[in-house]
Amino acid sequence: MSGDFGPRITIPAAQKFAHRSPDSHLTLFGDAEAIKRAAGRTVLADNISIHPCRDVIAMDAEPRHTLRHGRESSMWQALQALADGRTQACVSAGNSGALMLISRRVLGVIPGVEVPAFSKSMPVESGYTLMLDLGGNLHCSAQQLLQFARMGQIQARASGYDNPRIALLNIGSEAGKGTRLIREAAELLEAAPELNFQGSVEADSIFTGSVEVIVCDGFSGNIALKTSEGVARVLGRRIQHSFSSFSGRVAGVLIWPILRRWRQEFNPDAYNGAVLAGLNGVVVKSHGGAGVEATINALELAAQQARRDVPGTIANAVAAQ
Amino acid sequence: MSGDFGPRITIPAAQKFAHRSPDSHLTLFGDAEAIKRAAGRTVLADNISIHPCRDVIAMDAEPRHTLRHGRESSMWQALQALADGRTQACVSAGNSGALMLISRRVLGVIPGVEVPAFSKSMPVESGYTLMLDLGGNLHCSAQQLLQFARMGQIQARASGYDNPRIALLNIGSEAGKGTRLIREAAELLEAAPELNFQGSVEADSIFTGSVEVIVCDGFSGNIALKTSEGVARVLGRRIQHSFSSFSGRVAGVLIWPILRRWRQEFNPDAYNGAVLAGLNGVVVKSHGGAGVEATINALELAAQQARRDVPGTIANAVAAQ
Repeated sequence: MSGDFGPRITIPAAQKFAHRSPDSHLTLFGDAEAIKRAAGRTVLADNISIHPCRDVIAMDAEPRHTLRHGRESSMWQALQALADGRTQACVSAGNSGALMLISRRVLGVIPGVEVPAFSKSMPVESGYTLMLDLGGNLHCSAQQLLQFARMGQIQARASGYDNPRIALLNIGSEAGKGTRLIREAAELLEAAPELNFQGSVEADSIFTGSVEVIVCDGFSGNIALKTSEGVARVLGRRIQHSFSSFSGRVAGVLIWPILRRWRQEFNPDAYNGAVLAGLNGVVVKSHGGAGVEATINALELAAQQARRDVPGTIANAVAAQ
Repeated sequence: MSGDFGPRITIPAAQKFAHRSPDSHLTLFGDAEAIKRAAGRTVLADNISIHPCRDVIAMDAEPRHTLRHGRESSMWQALQALADGRTQACVSAGNSGALMLISRRVLGVIPGVEVPAFSKSMPVESGYTLMLDLGGNLHCSAQQLLQFARMGQIQARASGYDNPRIALLNIGSEAGKGTRLIREAAELLEAAPELNFQGSVEADSIFTGSVEVIVCDGFSGNIALKTSEGVARVLGRRIQHSFSSFSGRVAGVLIWPILRRWRQEFNPDAYNGAVLAGLNGVVVKSHGGAGVEATINALELAAQQARRDVPGTIANAVAAQ
């Protein structure tokens, strides 16, 4: 129901995903009338069903307020279905803060996990770099950063990296650089034999692919994420502007396929989907402004996390510590 | 002498700057033999002179160590000339930490300024956004962020913005978001009648040009700066790679002028030069990897700061508080 566009985007995305993944089943939580309106004349796929909900959580709702008054919302009901085992993963483009708080209430945090974290793959020169935390926890302890590293390792393995290289985000790559928190965390990661810890990296290394997992507090992670989105957006607009001139348009016809591929690869949408790692269940936050293809990416990410039972693997790893 | 390339870049940059700005005089501090070798057969311009120095501070030198042993270095001698009034501005591509420490020792901090800050213009959709601090101060007090805002306002005015809009870097734009430090600083900036304070902005707003000055602690600022450099570099390489295919090469000939302009505008080099704001003198840090044109940008920035007497204006503003 939510995100910037509501069913106008989520319904076509659900339809496409349902067709591409016939072994999946999608349940749409929301206003049944609005869903049917958005579907228009097209018939919903056989592997889609609707769970009608009376309420929706507004994008600007105060997250704590939704804990008391959000029980009938599509977000809460979708998370309740996941907690009850009626679904195996939940995707929402709604209010991030509310999604985290209601998830913690309804699903609960994996025993031994101090705090869940938003984690997300970033586009790099070759492959992906997973970053966490990206905004859930403004202040973190060194112990929490160590847990993020462990959760990141498990997620990177689920994406096919056997022995992912892990680094701490810092303002210099030399040991002894950065805040006391980062130096303390570096000592803990260094001492963890199961982690392939590479030390500190600066923020420009996020995009070089020199490591597969970057660990940071939620404040720094959010700054890095938003900065990269901002730069990519400005560069994209500039390119578009360049090709609106006449000579540009002539050349533009020729290079259109290249530009399109390039934009697909670098559009933040292509990497849509942040996992709320550390919960008893797969919850994926889709970007509020995500389009159809971006929403499908978030759905595929959720399906992958469920198939690999990432929450169960994290629970086992934490229990073994 | 320093930076990643030494006189190989600084000498041609100095020559070009000297020709373009015949009313300026450049003094080159360093190894006279190395300078002459880099000049090769070209004669140094009339408005260039050499001040021979015996020593150079290594890029990886421990900054505190240079305070005790760096007195004969080109960096120290250049700053000493500025302190003595023999020059009006100093540009260095060398060790940032050493440049800040030696500047503080030799020039001193403006009375009333708690800590100097690295400040830099970032490329935005239209014009520039000045950010500070970008790495000098990992932890800042709310009072220090208020001073950064005042110094940023004066610098933005020197660049032609009469009433620059000022914002705090945060992880949300709503009041009450972010760390306690940011909320405290927001109250101080709100209460300062001389500042055109716009509240908080997220990091993607750095590049939209919605404000002219963004204030942050050095850790967050460094993350934002390095992230933007990293994204721009990856995007540039991808574009280059796209045009190395055959059909790409055909189209590439046609769009070459567009790409070149685009890269000039967005290359981090085009915005080269961070000002060490709050010192008793104009000191500009040029990027270690800066090329010839980027180095000229840093020289022009230094000349502009000196002509507008930015340090004197900051001193007056602080004294008036």
